Amino acid sequence: MRANRIPIKQEEGEASPFELRRQKIYDWMAREGISMVMFEDFEGRRDPSIRWLSGQPSDALLFLWAGGKSLLVPWDANMAALYAQTDAVIPYAEFERQAVKALRAAALFFKVPPGSRIEISPSTSYTSFLKYLEEADDYDILCRIDCAHSETEQLRAVKDEAEQQIYRKAAEITNEITDLLEKNVRAGTLGSESDVALFIEGESRKRGCEGTGFETLAAGAERSFGIHAFPAYTAEPFAGPGLSILDYGLKYMGYTTDVTLTFVRDPSPAQEKMLTLTEKAYAKSLSLLKDGVSAREIALAADAVFSKARKSMPHSLGHGIGLEAHEAPALSSRTDNSWLLRAGMIFTLEPGLYDPRHGGCRLENDILLTPEGAEVLTNSRIVRL
Amino acid sequence: MRANRIPIKQEEGEASPFELRRQKIYDWMAREGISMVMFEDFEGRRDPSIRWLSGQPSDALLFLWAGGKSLLVPWDANMAALYAQTDAVIPYAEFERQAVKALRAAALFFKVPPGSRIEISPSTSYTSFLKYLEEADDYDILCRIDCAHSETEQLRAVKDEAEQQIYRKAAEITNEITDLLEKNVRAGTLGSESDVALFIEGESRKRGCEGTGFETLAAGAERSFGIHAFPAYTAEPFAGPGLSILDYGLKYMGYTTDVTLTFVRDPSPAQEKMLTLTEKAYAKSLSLLKDGVSAREIALAADAVFSKARKSMPHSLGHGIGLEAHEAPALSSRTDNSWLLRAGMIFTLEPGLYDPRHGGCRLENDILLTPEGAEVLTNSRIVRL
Repeated sequence: MRANRIPIKQEEGEASPFELRRQKIYDWMAREGISMVMFEDFEGRRDPSIRWLSGQPSDALLFLWAGGKSLLVPWDANMAALYAQTDAVIPYAEFERQAVKALRAAALFFKVPPGSRIEISPSTSYTSFLKYLEEADDYDILCRIDCAHSETEQLRAVKDEAEQQIYRKAAEITNEITDLLEKNVRAGTLGSESDVALFIEGESRKRGCEGTGFETLAAGAERSFGIHAFPAYTAEPFAGPGLSILDYGLKYMGYTTDVTLTFVRDPSPAQEKMLTLTEKAYAKSLSLLKDGVSAREIALAADAVFSKARKSMPHSLGHGIGLEAHEAPALSSRTDNSWLLRAGMIFTLEPGLYDPRHGGCRLENDILLTPEGAEVLTNSRIVRL
Repeated sequence: MRANRIPIKQEEGEASPFELRRQKIYDWMAREGISMVMFEDFEGRRDPSIRWLSGQPSDALLFLWAGGKSLLVPWDANMAALYAQTDAVIPYAEFERQAVKALRAAALFFKVPPGSRIEISPSTSYTSFLKYLEEADDYDILCRIDCAHSETEQLRAVKDEAEQQIYRKAAEITNEITDLLEKNVRAGTLGSESDVALFIEGESRKRGCEGTGFETLAAGAERSFGIHAFPAYTAEPFAGPGLSILDYGLKYMGYTTDVTLTFVRDPSPAQEKMLTLTEKAYAKSLSLLKDGVSAREIALAADAVFSKARKSMPHSLGHGIGLEAHEAPALSSRTDNSWLLRAGMIFTLEPGLYDPRHGGCRLENDILLTPEGAEVLTNSRIVRL
């Protein structure tokens, strides 16, 4: 089965998930008095909201018009024919691959009257923004922090039915591979960081994944003290004496899982203590999860487990996952974190401790919050060899 | 040998390549009356100029002061201790990981007088730029197209001695792997797209590479008509009847190679014609390369080979390579391409043709331009099975 041929289930005549999602943005536009919105997704400035709103995997502009129609402007029209579900498609080449030209053409296409408010991405560079002001001066071009783009990111934090279905499958494949990894590391057939990472790449593709959601981090005992080892994996040994960290995620229909296993061999008392604390912080934060709870409270509870033992975790407790490996909500203890965890959100819990002398350990799983509570989708764990 | 322990050769007391490069920017700053420049390299907005100027592989701010001193503000201070060669290092955490705060602190650190001109990246978003204007209003903050950042990119296009040395080694490893790939595909031991891609990943790491410079594109005969196949590789067959494309690059000490092989089995007359034309366009453009020639002229010469046969190439003839897979100079036939090819530049030549019925073919090698002419660093080819 080709990974790129898996359709989102849809009955004849039923609105596509993309259409339902766009409708929410059209409603928002009506409330805000915005006539047209432009999304951009290109190398160096990715915005998976286009995939979320249209199905197009990458490299495109997407225009939403308040009248309830969408126009995709793809770099690769063949890709759009396979994936995109929008009301209209015009190849980017027709606009000499210049976003300002495409924006003007889209406004004409939708008959947007001069003077109307058109919103562009808040990540538009200042130098580009000046170009819009100059070359599209018959419209009121908005570039704001609170905008259709941020609204879309907020909506993306709560996964809809189609997305939850994808995540169940993605987690199933991840769990199969995690089991195989443990088996093969125990059997001694995956001996290096690179063996482990490439095993994941190969097995994920066999199971119809698009690949990994981010570069696999496989850090043997000598390198595991780094939160993000560099390079991500090498030909050096994995799962030797001490603590080895494996942080990976599979990308399935665009959505990434994100799990971390720690492999432990002949741990010292200090390493045992790190592991116990990490498991305790994980269990504590998991136990507090419920619809409506403050994300910061959960993060503070994990931090408290560590600080009681005079340790501290140098990163956040977790983050939302989806079309991006890191997206909303944030599970951090920063004072400016105002996220509430809601049913439908899918996020990681990933407490960890790192010490240049003893190495690092982290335990990370993916959680779907339901009205009934937390459902742990993945089966990552601390593996004692 | 650990990939991350390979030093750039340097004699005792000799200025590091990083220092020599920074000196060029200090000189430029003096000419332009700029007191301080800030570079940024973070997830979602990468700028490998920081690695070029300091050795720090990623995730940092870099401040250059016209007085001839540099300050690195890394996300990961351990990484900086291993890699960075700057006059000073202050961890980003000290500024609550906020770039504006770091900029103010850097200005104090270097005693930059109020009212001085400080330059930030031209890719700074409009919404962030407003924050700089507000929170650093005692300085004259510049965000311009022609700036220290674009000057640095221009300088990066011509590779210095240290970089050419790295590229010779990177090409040597690439060529070894290309030979092994041909051997194994002929022997039938690499049968799927994913076999081929994972073989490259594994062999590159064994040889001390950081990995691949971009996701390997391995497209069997059924998918090779796409310039950039999606997904990049799958578990489907590779090198069956027809044209299969393999586009890969190795990342060695941060620098990427970029080559494309076409594997051919039982070609039809139409496929033979595509191959012959591609080889002809390659030979033609290669023959014209010399110090000082217009990049656009070279691209037009390749285009002419195809257009004479009533075909056309849907992408540029080539591009510079370095710390990024695509960087200056551009070898495109666009009218706005004003690049002259200079000795020291390293770039790809990659003519190709694509047809939904017949598949695609591309031949790509990496060229170092010397005062004497073109030196083809890599050994990629069309492989007839």
